[in-house]
Amino acid sequence: MKVLIIGAEGTLGKAITAELAPRHTIIKASRNSGEKVDVVDIASVKALFGRIGNVDAIVSACGTVHYGPLSDMTPELYDIGLRDKLMGQVNLILAGQAHVNDGGSFTLITGVLTDDPIRYSSSACMVNGAVEAFVRSASIEMPRGLRINAVSPTVLTESMAEYGPYFRGYKSVSAADAALAYSKSVEGAQTGQIYKVL
Amino acid sequence: MKVLIIGAEGTLGKAITAELAPRHTIIKASRNSGEKVDVVDIASVKALFGRIGNVDAIVSACGTVHYGPLSDMTPELYDIGLRDKLMGQVNLILAGQAHVNDGGSFTLITGVLTDDPIRYSSSACMVNGAVEAFVRSASIEMPRGLRINAVSPTVLTESMAEYGPYFRGYKSVSAADAALAYSKSVEGAQTGQIYKVL
Repeated sequence: MKVLIIGAEGTLGKAITAELAPRHTIIKASRNSGEKVDVVDIASVKALFGRIGNVDAIVSACGTVHYGPLSDMTPELYDIGLRDKLMGQVNLILAGQAHVNDGGSFTLITGVLTDDPIRYSSSACMVNGAVEAFVRSASIEMPRGLRINAVSPTVLTESMAEYGPYFRGYKSVSAADAALAYSKSVEGAQTGQIYKVL
Repeated sequence: MKVLIIGAEGTLGKAITAELAPRHTIIKASRNSGEKVDVVDIASVKALFGRIGNVDAIVSACGTVHYGPLSDMTPELYDIGLRDKLMGQVNLILAGQAHVNDGGSFTLITGVLTDDPIRYSSSACMVNGAVEAFVRSASIEMPRGLRINAVSPTVLTESMAEYGPYFRGYKSVSAADAALAYSKSVEGAQTGQIYKVL
């Protein structure tokens, strides 16, 4: 398969690449390296497909949100996550529908906070909940056997040095284990699923 | 209690008013009648509290989203629901936190589509999922014993004449039954809950 990985240079993106590259042709894309794309701008996503042509799977491991105390949040701070991690990923479907081969797949990223929040996570939770419900709904309207799933990992072991203090009591998972869920989505046949990696 | 009902003139808003008015002081607000407010504009929400002062409960029964085939959706069409039903309701918390008395509550509206989608509902699902996850997260950061819950009704019996063809096989509930869940949120002690009315 020809697999487009968005956010390929991040911790998770590298693990997904390591998992899938032995069996598939990988196209790495991100904001600053490989095939350049800014998913927040749907025109940039369309331009990417104009350059690389059709693919069999689109995998997303990208998304920014603002973390902050609820009492300090503003519409503008919520907008960061809505533009980036939510609509940035939705843009992959809107622009990519016409460029994924029959039976191909989209795999988006959410995270454990959807159902298991920490302090300062109201934007992250909002965005994850939006992506997960979008995936369930979009899956029943996909044409040509296209599939869509999300991977929802808990905090990554590789991120614990930075995020550990915010995730006390959470058992981490390796990026390699999270990458297995991407393999299940890309290489399996399920759709409309949220793969929790806990 | 002093209860602010946003969207008081809608089908659900009227039922909530009927349920709560015998026991509480109701302030009706909506875009076009009663206390005027446009929740999409946080300045309008702040101005509302400047006029009415503090309350014990804020209840929302409002929210617009665009329904359309996934293949026809655009970032702009998703933005309608993100601005209105999602951030419009979140603005009630951002602006209202300082104007709800200790132990008071916020009750937001989502809907059955979060987990049980129909065709054309990708925006509605996205927004509902966002509101529900926001509620779970915000509930753990609320100051002064403030509480936040959401009510998630299936299609209302009163709406079946209009929406029935889109909800084949869904058992409807009366607006009065959905209003009971608002009573549970406002008059009970729970927080972070999604009350499904099915």
